[in-house]
Amino acid sequence: MTETPPAKDEDARRHAEKKAKIKAARDRMMATKTGEKGLVVVLTGPGKGKSSSAFGMVMRAIAHGMPVAVVQFIKGAMATGERDFLLTHFPDLCLFHTMGEGFTWETQDLARDKAAARAGWEKAKEMIRDPSNRLVLLDEINIALRYDYLEVAEVVDFLLDEKPAMTHVILTGRNAKPELIALADLVTEMTVVKHPFRDGIKAQPGIEF
Amino acid sequence: MTETPPAKDEDARRHAEKKAKIKAARDRMMATKTGEKGLVVVLTGPGKGKSSSAFGMVMRAIAHGMPVAVVQFIKGAMATGERDFLLTHFPDLCLFHTMGEGFTWETQDLARDKAAARAGWEKAKEMIRDPSNRLVLLDEINIALRYDYLEVAEVVDFLLDEKPAMTHVILTGRNAKPELIALADLVTEMTVVKHPFRDGIKAQPGIEF
Repeated sequence: MTETPPAKDEDARRHAEKKAKIKAARDRMMATKTGEKGLVVVLTGPGKGKSSSAFGMVMRAIAHGMPVAVVQFIKGAMATGERDFLLTHFPDLCLFHTMGEGFTWETQDLARDKAAARAGWEKAKEMIRDPSNRLVLLDEINIALRYDYLEVAEVVDFLLDEKPAMTHVILTGRNAKPELIALADLVTEMTVVKHPFRDGIKAQPGIEF
Repeated sequence: MTETPPAKDEDARRHAEKKAKIKAARDRMMATKTGEKGLVVVLTGPGKGKSSSAFGMVMRAIAHGMPVAVVQFIKGAMATGERDFLLTHFPDLCLFHTMGEGFTWETQDLARDKAAARAGWEKAKEMIRDPSNRLVLLDEINIALRYDYLEVAEVVDFLLDEKPAMTHVILTGRNAKPELIALADLVTEMTVVKHPFRDGIKAQPGIEF
């Protein structure tokens, strides 16, 4: 009488077989991914995580010793604490320019908003043109584009024509324009599933700023 | 004959009026948001940005001088470079525990995966129970829950019963379980709009790790 293996061993064998198949498929897929290029990354959508994800990528670049530049189009989108933190700890790797005048609903002056957006974009071009900046974050530029404080065609044309090949540019903010999404290499939409503001909880350090 | 104001001034006046109305409504809304509590945050979905957003929140907490603990359930989800960076620059503010054995498709051993998930969860409980850890990141725990290497009921019960009131806990990974979403205060789903892997571009420093 031959012994049948216990069911537990049979489960483990089937698990191993299935996982080996998945791993082989994944290895084949990843072997085709050999290119390197500076990406245009768009982080958009109404959910939380656009700004923290962008800040995370800035920190990752810094962790790799890659020089970074941040242009803030809307003051308050990235917290003052984050800027101070970057400039205090990594002054040699991070440039930081705040051009905005507060969230758009805080200002009541169209001409001032447009001038701030224009100043931000001029600074952004300067940062992107300098190839020593390996990652440039245009924080909340989508807000400026959405309200037509800035022409999306101008931004798209510049990225196509003048962005150095190896420079990553991250553009954040809700309601990213379709022209920008069409141009981008990587686009993530952050969707709200649940938000604590609904329950009367205010913005808190470590989470929102 | 009375002078009518030029159209440009009228535009600016209407813009200011509209923005003032929005600002007043927002100020009223924000005045009701006065609570503070430690949040359960879930970052899920197939899109990019879960890990970078979590890393961004870790850096924000550190920027505020808040002690942080990271438990990695799946090795490779957060890059070695990130761990080294945190431990090199902020050894007093960051604890880092890697319990995983590589992505699930890299291993072919169910018993080993389950043991690693269990070890990760025991470490996670220890980190969360210590109220001096103000933010605890359970990186890719959703993968362990999804494959039932770990029971979601056990995680939910622990968070309800034992999480200190002011501690933030962030749980990341695709396919978050509904029980976890039901419990969480803040849930963001990251949706893929575009991904550069599709065009043969590999994972690159500053973006993916």
